[in-house]
Amino acid sequence: MKILVEELSRRGHEMVVLVPETSVLIGKSDNYTTKSFRVPYTLADLKANLDNIEKNAFEKPPNLSDIVENVGNLIQFLNMQVKACEWLLYDETLMKSLRETGFDVVLTDPFLPCGTIIADSFLIPAVYFLRLIPCLLDEGATQCPSPPSFVPRFFTGFSDKMTFPQRVRNMLMTIFEAFLCRKLFAGTDELASRYLQKDTTYKELLSHGAVWLFRYDFTFEFPKPQMPNMVQIGGINCAKKGPLTKELEEFVNGSGEHGFVVFTLGSMVSQLPEAKARVFFEAFRQIPQRVLWRYTGPIPENAPKNVKLMKWLPQNDLLGHPKVKAFITHGGSHGIYEGIFNGVPMVMLPLFGDQGDNVQRLVSRGVAETLSIYDLTSEKLLVALRKVINDKSYKEKMTELSAIHRDRPIEPLDLAVFWTEFVMRHKGAAHLRPAAHELNWIQYHSLDVIGFLILILVTVIFVTVKSCMFCFRKCFKKTHKKKKE
Amino acid sequence: MKILVEELSRRGHEMVVLVPETSVLIGKSDNYTTKSFRVPYTLADLKANLDNIEKNAFEKPPNLSDIVENVGNLIQFLNMQVKACEWLLYDETLMKSLRETGFDVVLTDPFLPCGTIIADSFLIPAVYFLRLIPCLLDEGATQCPSPPSFVPRFFTGFSDKMTFPQRVRNMLMTIFEAFLCRKLFAGTDELASRYLQKDTTYKELLSHGAVWLFRYDFTFEFPKPQMPNMVQIGGINCAKKGPLTKELEEFVNGSGEHGFVVFTLGSMVSQLPEAKARVFFEAFRQIPQRVLWRYTGPIPENAPKNVKLMKWLPQNDLLGHPKVKAFITHGGSHGIYEGIFNGVPMVMLPLFGDQGDNVQRLVSRGVAETLSIYDLTSEKLLVALRKVINDKSYKEKMTELSAIHRDRPIEPLDLAVFWTEFVMRHKGAAHLRPAAHELNWIQYHSLDVIGFLILILVTVIFVTVKSCMFCFRKCFKKTHKKKKE
Repeated sequence: MKILVEELSRRGHEMVVLVPETSVLIGKSDNYTTKSFRVPYTLADLKANLDNIEKNAFEKPPNLSDIVENVGNLIQFLNMQVKACEWLLYDETLMKSLRETGFDVVLTDPFLPCGTIIADSFLIPAVYFLRLIPCLLDEGATQCPSPPSFVPRFFTGFSDKMTFPQRVRNMLMTIFEAFLCRKLFAGTDELASRYLQKDTTYKELLSHGAVWLFRYDFTFEFPKPQMPNMVQIGGINCAKKGPLTKELEEFVNGSGEHGFVVFTLGSMVSQLPEAKARVFFEAFRQIPQRVLWRYTGPIPENAPKNVKLMKWLPQNDLLGHPKVKAFITHGGSHGIYEGIFNGVPMVMLPLFGDQGDNVQRLVSRGVAETLSIYDLTSEKLLVALRKVINDKSYKEKMTELSAIHRDRPIEPLDLAVFWTEFVMRHKGAAHLRPAAHELNWIQYHSLDVIGFLILILVTVIFVTVKSCMFCFRKCFKKTHKKKKE
Repeated sequence: MKILVEELSRRGHEMVVLVPETSVLIGKSDNYTTKSFRVPYTLADLKANLDNIEKNAFEKPPNLSDIVENVGNLIQFLNMQVKACEWLLYDETLMKSLRETGFDVVLTDPFLPCGTIIADSFLIPAVYFLRLIPCLLDEGATQCPSPPSFVPRFFTGFSDKMTFPQRVRNMLMTIFEAFLCRKLFAGTDELASRYLQKDTTYKELLSHGAVWLFRYDFTFEFPKPQMPNMVQIGGINCAKKGPLTKELEEFVNGSGEHGFVVFTLGSMVSQLPEAKARVFFEAFRQIPQRVLWRYTGPIPENAPKNVKLMKWLPQNDLLGHPKVKAFITHGGSHGIYEGIFNGVPMVMLPLFGDQGDNVQRLVSRGVAETLSIYDLTSEKLLVALRKVINDKSYKEKMTELSAIHRDRPIEPLDLAVFWTEFVMRHKGAAHLRPAAHELNWIQYHSLDVIGFLILILVTVIFVTVKSCMFCFRKCFKKTHKKKKE
């Protein structure tokens, strides 16, 4: 979201960013004011929770008990956020000063609860900026139809073309998600109702969001229904680009005709279990490409010379280099878009969250290979890596996808700025709010109408049949009588 | 569509426009080539059909037999178009020359059948430019969900907020539309299958349209689900604007503080039955505003001096004049957008087609009053006219609507050009095609999956109950026996 906040600031808006004192990612900036608020947990608590979410991925294939554990971790994570939100909301000095500032809009990721509650409390519109909310709460809150017959649910790993058994599982996941939603956001519902002093749910509050900026487009996401206040800004993170440092430029240029490979597992994972790391070192030793790897773990003595380890990689700048041949990634949406933007085929190692589904979207387009990290071997990695580098179809399809992604009437950052400013200018976007929000579930799906029509049909059939039988008996009796006479 | 064709031509594309020799509206242009093709009916036949569609509107309220007649007229009109299309398709010289030209894209209004069939035959993508297709064929062919609970069907005159009886009628209309579609496009289905030598339907062909440019946006249309290849270009016709002639400028400026009223009933209706015309003259005599009226009928002797009758009006230029106070219109989508663009409150007299529904969209926003033309009196017209001119809420709401309509990240004409060129550059827009196209009706709505899950549920319940009963009986017998013993 930082890129949007900075751009809005550059265009003359005063931006205030609320940062929990234990934030992992948000730093200070010259472009906006930050206000810190206290939270009832330490940075160590937060990291322990995040580590919990990650740790399982490396060692064994996901099974049902892991899913239960992951859902448990997610609930725990959200409950921490709700606690943090509670401390913010009841920090009266801070809230009073915020309220008096007279903001025009709240920009927030609705996965986290606080922005939406504040927007409702301050009576100002909200603009959402997100990849998704688990359990499909985003589609629910926008009243966006999402037929389970061709919109694969998250954590299924399905594509948009499903077999009958897959559609059955997708439907079961849809039903499960409805239950999950209640469980996940129960704490948020309670906090919102208590703080706003009205009987409400988080979904209800979300549904008043003016505009939803979704960090996807249809080069990545499968085509699916949209609502008028859903705006696609996929690839917004690729706008900023800079030159490489001299050292990096020399390293990648020295790769000759073979080029180089970029390898990161995202901002959260910079280390690996030692045995896992060895798998990568051994594979990289056997390829002619040079490798740039974001890795802060222990380095083996005989580490191959073609590998350069770094604490941090200028990922987008590297992927934009003409000599790049492949991108090894965990499949986070940021990295994926940098790969698509620059047309780089990928080897994907999904770890957790939406990554398994993200990966499926690229594999089904023939621009990536996927491997599971828990049973990864050097051989498997080599096969996949050689495939995406040497089989030209990967590069060709990726180049095509990249061309489509970059061919747009307006840049995603400008679009995000436009809609945020639109909401500020018009105090919301009421004209984009569908009347569906005023219907309950039964009404929305016309079940009452269908029931009513079936009732009428059955009554008509019943009366007709009875009348016919009555007439038939009368006539039959008469002829019977006549015959007798 | 002309404005888009001319703009594409200005940007260097070679445009060929296929014109039936009896065209009512399409003239020659310096900006594009026209190719004429013969059709099996005269201009008089076509006009007679169009007159048939219009004539009922003036004399009596619509009733069921009129609706049947109107549907009949519509079928007749479409059948004429199918015949014309057949003559074009089987005009081998013309078709051969077209085929050899090697076009990149077909731009067509899919209400008329020929463009889509040609696109399929030439194996080139199609871009559609439309307001709507009757019987909701557009939503069907795009696989766009259109819940009848909040998406009002055409010819119902409902808004997006419906009562239960209205939702019942809307549902019945939805069912009726499915039948209507088959009837309306039966001729097209037959022609397409015969010419393309494959068993197909018009809907199937339409579903391969790359991009649909819809001449609406959500300042006019009610918010409803969209598909990724649906693009809103409402207001595209307002892009061109010129100064008024000296004579017109003098007339409207002479209206003083009271301003003036613009009155047209669209490009098709420039005359009125004499008694009807008198109603207008009498009403206009009693208002302080000047009136500009597109009217070619007989003029009464004592025609009021504040009325200027013209054969043709520069409608958009007049509506953009600061002294304009109101717009009397039949509610065609072009006029409506010129009204919205310029922020002019309206008095609406819907005649036929989509106009009744268009009107409903503006009335529900509080920016227009509607009157039925068949029982119009001078008094009714005066009341409505004075209301929209003197009650400030109409102007205020219209100004707000206009501001929202004009506040967009990209102009509709540029957007239409972008998507047409996009389709040319990428030979279609395959990435926007939802997998829903590969599902049948039962699969799309997951009815097979729901049936399967219910079957399993019933089986499980049945087996459980039977097992319990079996155990129960066994235990019961035993205790029974024991007791006996």
